[in-house]
Amino acid sequence: MSDIIKKRRSVRKFTVDPVETDNIKKLLQAGTLAPSGKNGQPWRFAIVQQDKALLRKVAACTVYEDFVCRADCLVCVFMDKLDSYHYIKDCQAIGACIQNMLLKATELELGACWIGEVLNRDAQVKRLLGIDNRYDLMAVVAVGQKSGEKECAPSRKQLQDLILSYK
Amino acid sequence: MSDIIKKRRSVRKFTVDPVETDNIKKLLQAGTLAPSGKNGQPWRFAIVQQDKALLRKVAACTVYEDFVCRADCLVCVFMDKLDSYHYIKDCQAIGACIQNMLLKATELELGACWIGEVLNRDAQVKRLLGIDNRYDLMAVVAVGQKSGEKECAPSRKQLQDLILSYK
Repeated sequence: MSDIIKKRRSVRKFTVDPVETDNIKKLLQAGTLAPSGKNGQPWRFAIVQQDKALLRKVAACTVYEDFVCRADCLVCVFMDKLDSYHYIKDCQAIGACIQNMLLKATELELGACWIGEVLNRDAQVKRLLGIDNRYDLMAVVAVGQKSGEKECAPSRKQLQDLILSYK
Repeated sequence: MSDIIKKRRSVRKFTVDPVETDNIKKLLQAGTLAPSGKNGQPWRFAIVQQDKALLRKVAACTVYEDFVCRADCLVCVFMDKLDSYHYIKDCQAIGACIQNMLLKATELELGACWIGEVLNRDAQVKRLLGIDNRYDLMAVVAVGQKSGEKECAPSRKQLQDLILSYK
């Protein structure tokens, strides 16, 4: 498990090969096993995979269009505000849900990248997907088959610099 | 890895046995390997383990005092607002960090419970810990040795009910 946590990378280079629908389902199932406050499970998903024209339009909502449009599948993650009891805590729960999906993708040897920047275009993405204002866009996870290229590990702060106190 | 994701439970019953410092460090290290927007790593930790009087005071800040005060260790998770570039996305990143800690705790056979309710007492917890307003309290993770008692799996929504569209 720790190996998977360590191995996870933001993968931005994909081959042209498709991702099996069954594997997308496995990512989603892992995501939905995250904890959430009062077990509200506020996460919702709009998946764009078959409709490549739509996928390109959603990709064009981010400044990372160049690589996002090359993903085979975009998992657009929303918060259902009707199932949310506390916005901040539900944002955290959805972060936990996305992390589960990324760890599962790592285990399945898929490439995946969490795109937060797209939140600036919430209205545009919802319009493209036909999703109403009951839902807030939380992230897009781009998923594809990884190219062989090795992704660099980002620099990390030292643990001692992140500990405010140990009493 | 999926087994760990499935096995993770909110554990609220602990034995009186301590948790090795080294295991707390492993949880924190797993947490810090989460992704964050622009690699900001906004998570910070204040750990309360040795000072049991302080631990009881922090526990008393939550309505779950009865079980939280029986944890051997409280990992108080904060956001460093000076290292935050977008509050919502950084809340999500901290959710991903907490999820890594919970998965690591599951792997180590430790009991852990994510307490969000304590956010109502941000000021009080920071006063107890001597932490200033540069930091926002994000959660407290109660950690201890699990009692043998089996924790129930919470009910889960069906995946099909969480998918808004698949195009």
